[in-house]
Amino acid sequence: QLKFDLNRLQPVDVGEYISQLPEKQRAIAFRLLNKSQAIDVFEYLPPEVQEELINSLHDVQVVQLVEAMSPDDRAELFDELPAKVVKRLLQELSTEQRQATATILGYAEATAGRLMTTEYVWLREGLTVGEALSKIRRQDEDKETIYYAYVTDDNRKLVRVVSLRQLLFTFPDVLIKEIASDRVLKVHTETPQEDVAQIMKRYDLIALPVVDREERLVGIITIDDVVDILEEEATEDIQKLAGVSGDDGALAHPLVTIRKRLPWLLAIMGLYIGASSAIAPFQGVISSVPVLAVIMPLFSNTGGTVGVQALTVTIRGLGIGEITTKDTLKILRKELTAGLATAVTLGITMVMLSMIWAQPQERWVGFVAGIVMATNTLVAVTLGTFLPMGLKRLKLDPALISGPLMTTLLDAIGFVTFLSMISVALHFFK
Amino acid sequence: QLKFDLNRLQPVDVGEYISQLPEKQRAIAFRLLNKSQAIDVFEYLPPEVQEELINSLHDVQVVQLVEAMSPDDRAELFDELPAKVVKRLLQELSTEQRQATATILGYAEATAGRLMTTEYVWLREGLTVGEALSKIRRQDEDKETIYYAYVTDDNRKLVRVVSLRQLLFTFPDVLIKEIASDRVLKVHTETPQEDVAQIMKRYDLIALPVVDREERLVGIITIDDVVDILEEEATEDIQKLAGVSGDDGALAHPLVTIRKRLPWLLAIMGLYIGASSAIAPFQGVISSVPVLAVIMPLFSNTGGTVGVQALTVTIRGLGIGEITTKDTLKILRKELTAGLATAVTLGITMVMLSMIWAQPQERWVGFVAGIVMATNTLVAVTLGTFLPMGLKRLKLDPALISGPLMTTLLDAIGFVTFLSMISVALHFFK
Ligand SMILES: [Mg+2]
Ligand SMILES: [Mg+2]
Ligand SMILES: [Mg+2]
Ligand SMILES: [Mg+2]
Ligand SMILES: [Mg+2]
Ligand SMILES: [Mg+2]
Ligand SMILES: [Mg+2]
Ligand SMILES: [Mg+2]
Ligand SMILES: [Mg+2]
Ligand SMILES: [Mg+2]
Ligand SMILES: [Mg+2]
Ligand SMILES: [Mg+2]
Ligand SMILES: [Mg+2]
Repeated sequence: QLKFDLNRLQPVDVGEYISQLPEKQRAIAFRLLNKSQAIDVFEYLPPEVQEELINSLHDVQVVQLVEAMSPDDRAELFDELPAKVVKRLLQELSTEQRQATATILGYAEATAGRLMTTEYVWLREGLTVGEALSKIRRQDEDKETIYYAYVTDDNRKLVRVVSLRQLLFTFPDVLIKEIASDRVLKVHTETPQEDVAQIMKRYDLIALPVVDREERLVGIITIDDVVDILEEEATEDIQKLAGVSGDDGALAHPLVTIRKRLPWLLAIMGLYIGASSAIAPFQGVISSVPVLAVIMPLFSNTGGTVGVQALTVTIRGLGIGEITTKDTLKILRKELTAGLATAVTLGITMVMLSMIWAQPQERWVGFVAGIVMATNTLVAVTLGTFLPMGLKRLKLDPALISGPLMTTLLDAIGFVTFLSMISVALHFFK
Repeated sequence: QLKFDLNRLQPVDVGEYISQLPEKQRAIAFRLLNKSQAIDVFEYLPPEVQEELINSLHDVQVVQLVEAMSPDDRAELFDELPAKVVKRLLQELSTEQRQATATILGYAEATAGRLMTTEYVWLREGLTVGEALSKIRRQDEDKETIYYAYVTDDNRKLVRVVSLRQLLFTFPDVLIKEIASDRVLKVHTETPQEDVAQIMKRYDLIALPVVDREERLVGIITIDDVVDILEEEATEDIQKLAGVSGDDGALAHPLVTIRKRLPWLLAIMGLYIGASSAIAPFQGVISSVPVLAVIMPLFSNTGGTVGVQALTVTIRGLGIGEITTKDTLKILRKELTAGLATAVTLGITMVMLSMIWAQPQERWVGFVAGIVMATNTLVAVTLGTFLPMGLKRLKLDPALISGPLMTTLLDAIGFVTFLSMISVALHFFK
C-alpha cells in the first residue's frame, strides 16, 4: 500500500516524506520507488539525504540516479559531497554528463553559469521548420524544456530564439530563420543570479539562454530555479535587516542559529557601547534632570523606527530593481519632504509629553526634546537613504546596514546632541 | 528612427519608456507603435497610464486594445477605472471577452479566481492525440500557454492534465486518456494568492488550473503572474516588519509615504509612551543611580535586537511555508536553546561593562543588569516566536507584529523588571 502510494504521489512530496523519516528508514523507503519515480524524487531530496542514500544504496543504482539528474542539480549536489565521492561518481558518469557537470562547476557560485542546465534544445540557423521539429523530437529526451529552441550560427553563437508554438504552426518547408526572433534576451555566464532573476521576472520568461564571452550558447536557466532564487534573495534581505546573517532557517539547529546571530548581536552591542560611552560623561546632567531618562528612550525608539522605515523601503527598492543608485537624490528629496511632516508631528507630540512628565521647573527640557526629536527624524531618513545607497555604490550588499546598526548610529548622534544642548541650557537656567 | 526602435524593443521596455515621458507625449509615442506591438505594450503599462491612453486615443483603437488584452490583465485594469468607463468598454467587447472579464471580477481580490486567465487549452477526455493536436492548433490564437492542456469529463470537471510534449511524441490514434496524468494539481477559485504561489513554487509549475466548487475547470494561473505575487508578498512582509503598512514604494509620492508610515509611528510612539510612563515613577531611583541611564538603552537595544532576530526568522518561515503553527513548540525549544547561550554571553558582557562605567559604590547594579539582560534575552526569543505564531493561529497576518512593536513591548517588560529590582536592592544597600 505504502509502495503504491509513494509511486503515485508528487516527487516533491515523496522527497519531503523520506527526508523526515528516521535515518535508518530512508533507504528502505527509497527502495520502494520504481525507477522513474526514484529518479524524480532523488532530485528533490536535500543534499544531506542525497549523500546518505549515495552511501547506502547499491553502486549501480547510485550511478543510474546521478546520471539521470539534471546537470544543474547534479552540480549542486557535487558541491556538497566530499571530493573523494565526487571523483568516484564523475568517473562512472557518461562523457556527456561528466562534461556538463564539469562545465557548470567551473563557474563561480551564484552566477548564471552555475545556475544553468546544459539540457536545452539547440538548432542551426539553416534548418527548415520541418527539420527543426524532427530534430526536437530526436533530442527531446531529458531536455529541461522543449518549448523554446535556441538558434545558433556556424560558430555556435546564439542569434535567435523560436518557440515550439511558432514551429508547430508554420509550414514545414519554411526556414526557421524567417520565423525565429532575433530580439533574443540572454545573460553571460558571469551574470550574478540576482540579475538573472530580475531579467526573467521583468520579461516574463520561462527560460533564459546563457552565453559565454564569445557569445556562444552554453546553457539555459529555467524559471523554477529562479523562483527559488527570488525567494532566497528576499529572505536574505529580510534577515539581514534584522541583524541575522542571512541564511538562518526557522527550523535550523540551535548552533547554526547562534552562529548566524551572535556575531551581529555582539557587533551591535559593541557599537552601542560606543554610543553609551558617549552618554556616560553626562551622568551628572541626568542626575539633576531625571525626566531625561524617561524622554531619551522614547525619542530613541521613535527616531529609530523612522530610520528603519526609510532604510527598509530603500533596501527593498534596490533588491527588486525598482530603483538604482542614480535615484539617490530623488529618493532623498521625497524622504525629506515626507520626513518634514513627520518631524513636525513627532516634535510637537514630544513637547506635549514632556510637559506632562516633567516637574514644573524642568518643562523647558520639553522644548529641547521637541527640537531634537524633529531634527533626529530628518537625520534618520537621510541615513536610511544614504547608507544603503552608499553600500550599493561601493558594490557591497545594501542590506549590510541592518536595522539595529542604523538605530545605534542614530542614537549616538541623537543622544549626544540632546545631552549637549541640555548641558548648555543648564548653564543658563541655573 | 524612434518609431523603428519602439517597434523592435521588448514591450516591457517600451512600456517603461512611455510611462516616464511627460504626460502630453505619451499618446504621441504610443501612436508610433504598430498594432501588434501596441497591443503587447499596452498590457505592460501601469493602470494610470492605461487610463490616460483610453481617454486620449480614438475609440476604435481603445476597443481593439482592450479586446486584445488577456482577461486577467483586463480585470486588473477595470478594477482601477471609473465605473462609467468600465461600463462603456464592457459594452463594446465581444461576448466572449466580456464574460471572461465579468467572471474574473466576480471573485475576491487576492484569490485564485481573480488571478487566473480564461485563455487556456481545454480538451475532452474522449479525444485522440491527433484530434487533440488539431484542436490545439485551432484554439492556439491568444491562449496564454499551449504547453499544458487540461482534460475534462462530460460535466466539465477537471480530471487530467497533458503536456504538449506528451502529445507531440505519441501516435495520433492513441486516446489522450491513456497518456494524460490523473495526478493533476489544482486550486479552487477562493484559494488565497499566497497559497497559489507556494504551490506553484513547490511543484515547479508554469501553469496551474483553477476549478470552481463543483470541480469544474474555470481558468489557469501562469507563473509570470505568480513571480510578481511572490515578490509583492515578500515586500509586504519586509515593510510590515519595519513598521510600514506594506505597499510603500521607494519612488512613491511623499503623501503616500506619510500615509503608509505615520500611523505606525504614532502607534509605536503611543505604545512607547505607555512604556515610558512605566519608567516615570522611577525617576528618583535614576537620579540616585545615574549609571542606569547609560545601562538601560544598551540593554534595551540589545534585547530588542535579539527579539527582532527571532521574530523575523519566524515570520519569514511562515511566509515561505517552511513552518506552520504546528511547529511552535519545536521552534520555541530551538530558540530557547540558542537563546540560553546568547543570554549567558550578553549577561556576562553586561556585568563587565557596568563595572567599568559605574562608580565603585554602584557596582552591584552591574550584577542586577547582567541578570536582567539574560532573562530579557529569553523573554525576547519567546515573544519573537509566540507573537507571530499567535497571530497566524488567529488567521491574522503574522507580519502585523512589527519589529518596533516587539521592541517596545520588550522594553516595557525589561525596564519595569530592572528598575523594580534596583529599587528593592536600594532598600537593602542604603
Ligand atoms: Mg533530468
Ligand atoms: Mg513579470
Ligand atoms: Mg533546474
Ligand atoms: Mg530546481
Ligand atoms: Mg541580496
Ligand atoms: Mg545574494
Ligand atoms: Mg492576449
Ligand atoms: Mg495579470
Ligand atoms: Mg521549486
Ligand atoms: Mg497573466
Ligand atoms: Mg502579468
Ligand atoms: Mg503576507
Ligand atoms: Mg498579502
